[in-house]
This record gives sequence, structure tokens and C-alpha cells, in this order.
Amino acid sequence: MHAITIPEPGGPEALVWAEVPDPVPGEGEVLVEVVAGAVNRADLLQRKGFYDPPPGVSPYPGLECSGRIAALGPNVSGWAVGDEVCALLSGGGYAEKVAVPVGQLLPVPAGVDLLSAAALPEVVCTVWSNVFMIAHLRPGETLLVHGGSSGIGTMAIQLAKAVGARVAVTAGGPKKLERCRELGADILIDYREQDFVEELRKATDGEGADVILDIVGAKYLDRNVQALAVNGRLAIIGLQGGRKGELNLGALLAKRGAVTATTLRGRPLAEKSAIVAAVREHVWPLFATGRVRPVVDRTIPMKDAAEAHRVLEGSGHVGKVLLKV
Amino acid sequence: MHAITIPEPGGPEALVWAEVPDPVPGEGEVLVEVVAGAVNRADLLQRKGFYDPPPGVSPYPGLECSGRIAALGPNVSGWAVGDEVCALLSGGGYAEKVAVPVGQLLPVPAGVDLLSAAALPEVVCTVWSNVFMIAHLRPGETLLVHGGSSGIGTMAIQLAKAVGARVAVTAGGPKKLERCRELGADILIDYREQDFVEELRKATDGEGADVILDIVGAKYLDRNVQALAVNGRLAIIGLQGGRKGELNLGALLAKRGAVTATTLRGRPLAEKSAIVAAVREHVWPLFATGRVRPVVDRTIPMKDAAEAHRVLEGSGHVGKVLLKV
Repeated sequence: MHAITIPEPGGPEALVWAEVPDPVPGEGEVLVEVVAGAVNRADLLQRKGFYDPPPGVSPYPGLECSGRIAALGPNVSGWAVGDEVCALLSGGGYAEKVAVPVGQLLPVPAGVDLLSAAALPEVVCTVWSNVFMIAHLRPGETLLVHGGSSGIGTMAIQLAKAVGARVAVTAGGPKKLERCRELGADILIDYREQDFVEELRKATDGEGADVILDIVGAKYLDRNVQALAVNGRLAIIGLQGGRKGELNLGALLAKRGAVTATTLRGRPLAEKSAIVAAVREHVWPLFATGRVRPVVDRTIPMKDAAEAHRVLEGSGHVGKVLLKV
Repeated sequence: MHAITIPEPGGPEALVWAEVPDPVPGEGEVLVEVVAGAVNRADLLQRKGFYDPPPGVSPYPGLECSGRIAALGPNVSGWAVGDEVCALLSGGGYAEKVAVPVGQLLPVPAGVDLLSAAALPEVVCTVWSNVFMIAHLRPGETLLVHGGSSGIGTMAIQLAKAVGARVAVTAGGPKKLERCRELGADILIDYREQDFVEELRKATDGEGADVILDIVGAKYLDRNVQALAVNGRLAIIGLQGGRKGELNLGALLAKRGAVTATTLRGRPLAEKSAIVAAVREHVWPLFATGRVRPVVDRTIPMKDAAEAHRVLEGSGHVGKVLLKV
């Protein structure tokens, strides 16, 4: 098969479409013939050599895909060759084939085409596990999403609205904010022009956010704590603004607040499987009704993955960038 | 009645036993004739003028007491004059009488005498709400308790052991550590001589603590994150070591960790009532079997509260210091 390899870490040009051996599905795995993969920020880090795949995982980048089951490994039941699926991957999605543990496999949801389904696993699992399983966003509460127009952001807006929460977003510029509004966001904050703590305070009668989904990390830590409501939960899933920041414990204590930080990739299979099962139960039905849909910025041939990385680095996109085999 | 008043904030001598008007129980409250109160670190802050009581709360210090119900306010059911009780207070425990919302009232548990019951409400509610309701300590997990010989610490050790967890403690010197061991602590760390991150790592095959109950705050923040296990939860309930500290989000993210900070006093009545109800259901039966018991360092006449504050400031005590009317 072919896959995107990284002979030497570096810029987008480090991504090389090359012939490599086919993966072999192990115990409890299936082989998926990939129709499309999708790009995540973690892939950019991996390309630069800063985010090596966990031991035993495919060396090729790619944390999600859609496709058809081409073969079953030993001890697999409930799935058949030819099934249309999408999958949460620990790596290896930038390839024509990938071996996937069945716990990370999902059927293509009703109402979504096979190609677009590649846009779902990583963002849906990340949002569901953080905003709902960890931070327990409830109907009527306020969610603040940083980077509202990103893949994660566009899904967080839709899922939070679907459960009856109010959604505030930050994004860069009116065009991205307008897309967030179309997806359901109630409070729009242009982080280039406005202070999100101040704007959120005004929009919530001084209460703040019950849950914050953050991809910035250190740079926003102090302001995120300021923006939390009493009993608020700050869920950090990315560190684009640095790793070490000052935490005002006095402020956090006065609010009885919580700060959590997670990644999906590093979780053991059992935890990923539990998240995937919860997503299938709680989120998949929302696609059938059209209430929630994949947001795809553009689709690029997989062999041109370098171009897709340049798109993400330019930050002009809204939603997911797909890589079509 | 008499109560300990604070005419001017200051040292222990600022505490003055004076004649004051009797409190009147309001809607949903009872009047308790106090047998004993107990001292908490928050009382020391209040005495110094750094921790004013919330609006509408008794101006006298004291966050817990035991005693007998002397009168019922309007709309109280389920309690009778003469009942022996202990109570979680928002203030006013350093007094001969105090008005208490019924949601913060507990019967004296079987197996505990009325005087010693004053040692229970604040520590049991704090430990149960943080270690179990927020951090969800589970059987077989490891709890690290900083200040293992404190009132909070001695109760945390016992409750964690009662549910089948492993307990590590830090304390200052072998005498205090020996008392922690008698109460059930498995891993003893002398913070004066040893590095708790290192010692905990050695004692847990490198895994660390699933839950940390911390009273230090900023000064321990970075080391507490280092000491957390994967999926670990750091529950901060005091800031004796400062309010602002550097948080290594990269380390927290790699562990998928959580940092929470709470106080009990500031919670609204509904939240306190929920905690008190959970304590009555889950913890009170443990006293009847003798599995868990109050740990009282000494009992001092309430009018000599200044002496009790000096004991806490000297940090030579183990468990609770009571104030007997």
C-alpha cells in the first residue's frame, strides 16, 4: 500500500507518499481500506518530531479515518468485510489501509456519507469525552469554546446546542464567527479585538462559563480561571499557547473550580473503547436527525498531505480538512 | 449568652469571651445549645481579619459544634427539642448557642459521645466531599494526604482505609507519622527530611497517587502534579503555602490529570445539605462499628479559645482541638 511517511521531521515537505508494507490486523482488530483520513493539529506536531506515536502504533500520522472493512483479524465479531466504518486511530490514518482495534471502530452514522465520516471520530470523541464525560456540561449551562471555527470547535458548538446548553465561542475575525453563529453559537467573541473574560462576563450577567473547552493552555490559563463561573470546569485539550502557566488557586478555590487536561491519543484501548461506545450511543443518533453534521473545510488528495498541513498552519480553515485516498 | 467575639482582628488575644444577644432560629433552622465547638484553620484567618463570614452569617468564629436542640424555628420537622446533634456551621460555633439550618444538622453518630461529636462535621464533610464526591477515590487506589496528623488528615486516613484505598501521608516528624500509622496510613513521609514525590514514587512502583488531598496550595502545586498517577486528581482545600503557583499543563495533560479547589464554607445551603446527607448515609455507619473514630488532641474551655489558637499555630497537635462550653 501507500502511506504518508516522515523520513525526517520538518516542515510540510517532510510528508512523503511512499510504498510501504500493508498492515496486518492483529487479535481483535480489523483491516480498513481507507477512503479518507482527516488532519489534526497533533499530526503537525508529529511531522515536526515533537509527538511520537505511542509504542506499538503505526509510524504514519493520522488519528482518524473512514473506509470499508477489508479483512477481519482473529476474534472479531459484530463486524463484516465490506462494512462502511469510521475509526478513531492511535496513528496510521494517512494510508491506504490501517489496522484498527474494534473498540475504536464506529459505523458510518445514518445521514453522513462515507467520505465525510472521516471528519468525525477524533472531534466527536474529544468533545464528548471532555465536555460531557469529564466536565459534565448540563442543559442550561454555558460552554465557552476557544477556537470555535476549528474542527473541535465546530463540533463542540453543535453538540452543546443539541443538549440545550448556551454556547460562547472565541475565533479570529468576523467571517469565522459568522460560521460559528450559523452552527448555533450564541455569544461570539473576536479574540483579536475583544477580551474574552470581559465579553463573557457582559453576556452572562457576570456569571461566566460553566465549562470551558480550551486548546491554548498556559497563555489562557489565568484568564480562563477568571472566566469560569462558580463550580466551573476548565477542560484543556491542547497547549498551543504553552505548557507552563500561573494558576491562581485562590481564584479557583473561591469558585470551587476544576482544571482538567487530557489527550485522547494516549489513553489505553479500554478508555478509548468506552468513549467510542458512549459516542455511538449518545451522539450518533443526532446525525440521523440532521441536528449535528460534519463540518468539512475542504478535501485534498492524501498524497498532497503537505498542502493540507499548510492549510492548518495558515489557520484560515473552518472545520475539518480531509485527505482523500 | 456568651460567645467568642473579635473586637479587633489580631493575634490569639483578639478573641474575647463576651456577653452577646442570643441567636434566634429562622425558617428551617433550630437553636442548638452548644456543648463543644472545634477549631479550624479558617478560624485563625477570621481572627486575623482575612476571612470574613459570608453575608448573613454569625460574626463569631466556629465552623462546627455539638450540642442539644434547645428550640425549633418555623417549618422544622424531623428534629425535636433535646435531640443530641452535631452541625456544620457557616460561623458562630464559638458560642453557647447557635442557630443552624436543618440541612447542616447531623445526629450524634452511634459510638461517639456528645462532646467528641464536635470534632466531626467539618472534617468529615470536607474529606467526604473532596476525596469521594469530587475526586471519586476508589478501592485499591492510592490517596496522598498532606498534613496527615491534622484534623482533616486523621479523618482522611480513616475514611480512605475504610473504603479499601491505600493511604500515603506527609507529616512533620516521626511522632506525628507514628500516629498516622496507628490510624491506618500505609506510606509515611516526613516532609522535613524527605521529598514526597520521590518517596511516593518508590512506594508505588512509580505510579504515584490517584488522589491527593492538599492543604498547601501554590508551594506544592508543581510537586503535587509530579506525584499524581495517570488519571490522578489533585483536590486542594487550603492555601497555607500560597495562592499563585506555576502549573505544568504539559505534565497534567500527559497524565490526564485534574486539579480542583474548593472550600466548604462558601457553598450554598443546598450543596452543604447534599454533602451532609451523603455523610450521614455513607460515613455515619462507620462510627457505629468503631471502624472510624474522632481524633481529639485536647479539649480546652471555650472562653480560653486563644489558647486553642496557639495550639494550632504551634502545629504540635494531632487531630482536632475542641472548645468546651
